[in-house]
Amino acid sequence: MPKLVDHRERREAIASALWRVVEQQGWPRATMREVAREAGVSLGQLQHYFSSRTSMLTFAMEFAAEQTSARVAHGLSGLDQPPHPRDVLRVVVTEMLPMHTDARATSRMNAAYVLEALHDPELREVARAGLREGREMVERLVREAIANGQISSDRDPALETDLILSLTGFTPLLELGVIEPEAALAAVDQHLDRLFDPTADDLRRDRGPGPGRP
Amino acid sequence: MPKLVDHRERREAIASALWRVVEQQGWPRATMREVAREAGVSLGQLQHYFSSRTSMLTFAMEFAAEQTSARVAHGLSGLDQPPHPRDVLRVVVTEMLPMHTDARATSRMNAAYVLEALHDPELREVARAGLREGREMVERLVREAIANGQISSDRDPALETDLILSLTGFTPLLELGVIEPEAALAAVDQHLDRLFDPTADDLRRDRGPGPGRP
Repeated sequence: MPKLVDHRERREAIASALWRVVEQQGWPRATMREVAREAGVSLGQLQHYFSSRTSMLTFAMEFAAEQTSARVAHGLSGLDQPPHPRDVLRVVVTEMLPMHTDARATSRMNAAYVLEALHDPELREVARAGLREGREMVERLVREAIANGQISSDRDPALETDLILSLTGFTPLLELGVIEPEAALAAVDQHLDRLFDPTADDLRRDRGPGPGRP
Repeated sequence: MPKLVDHRERREAIASALWRVVEQQGWPRATMREVAREAGVSLGQLQHYFSSRTSMLTFAMEFAAEQTSARVAHGLSGLDQPPHPRDVLRVVVTEMLPMHTDARATSRMNAAYVLEALHDPELREVARAGLREGREMVERLVREAIANGQISSDRDPALETDLILSLTGFTPLLELGVIEPEAALAAVDQHLDRLFDPTADDLRRDRGPGPGRP
């Protein structure tokens, strides 16, 4: 058992080193050699944990997805229980945007990964499965909210899901400082306010400040 | 004069070669050497046209922006004159999404460029200026439409501009085949339909099929 834990921990430490290289130096410089240097291991040791760049990238992305899920879970734990679906969607969307250090690291990793996946069938399948899973989770929330009368039943759940996911399009605008995090948050809130039926009895209750709420 | 034209043409041919390398092999493989090979020139010749990778990337991005503008202008020329601002915004947004070969090439180039710009102050300024300019153009259209009563005056032009730009968030979903171009178009249309005031007299006229309209 300790051996297994060590193995997992070492792989996570290497994945974190990969993120740092991607965040600080950019994707083209994230070679096996550079990641080994950043992780403080030899190239041979790195290859013991990851037989190829692809397997290292795949693990790093899965780890990034887990970290994002953990941040979302943490955000949800700060909401009224059971949380309102609008607030759940707000946490999900804001944790995908590069608005603070941790989310920025996973967001950059993700952008690099999508670009790389376009030229690597194995990565492409992993990236696609991850995005599909995220999309299904959001669509489930939208369908539940429609069933509960919190979103009007004349809304198309698939289309509304796509519009919610498109809010991640703020990423390059935030990364390059074209818009401020406050503006992105205001736009996300406006979009969600328009999605949820204002006549539903529980929408206008006090939701508290919530994560990152100005 | 002919010499100047040749110089410009050669630089454009090299920029196109860079796009092809980025589209087919991915960003990390887009070295000066590989681009020279793809363009059918020697590395020395390439360096005659571009003294550094940064200057090559900057030119390639400016050329990509020009090509996108040309596609938008072409799309606009197919609309009723003067075009309705909703249709103008639709052309602008759809030409930024990877829904056909040319737009996919510039979209991938752009994604790679944004990632690279995060680690290169010179590229960052160029990328930021380009995005700001695009944002201002969209905000101008929104403000005009509000002034003309085509968008309700209680909409916030800056926030609506940001929401329109966020529609480019469909890019990774399209690139990885998580959603189909038809679904992205339907969502873009739905968003624009909700933005424009349906009681404005000229919105419901027949707009014709328009580019890519299903």
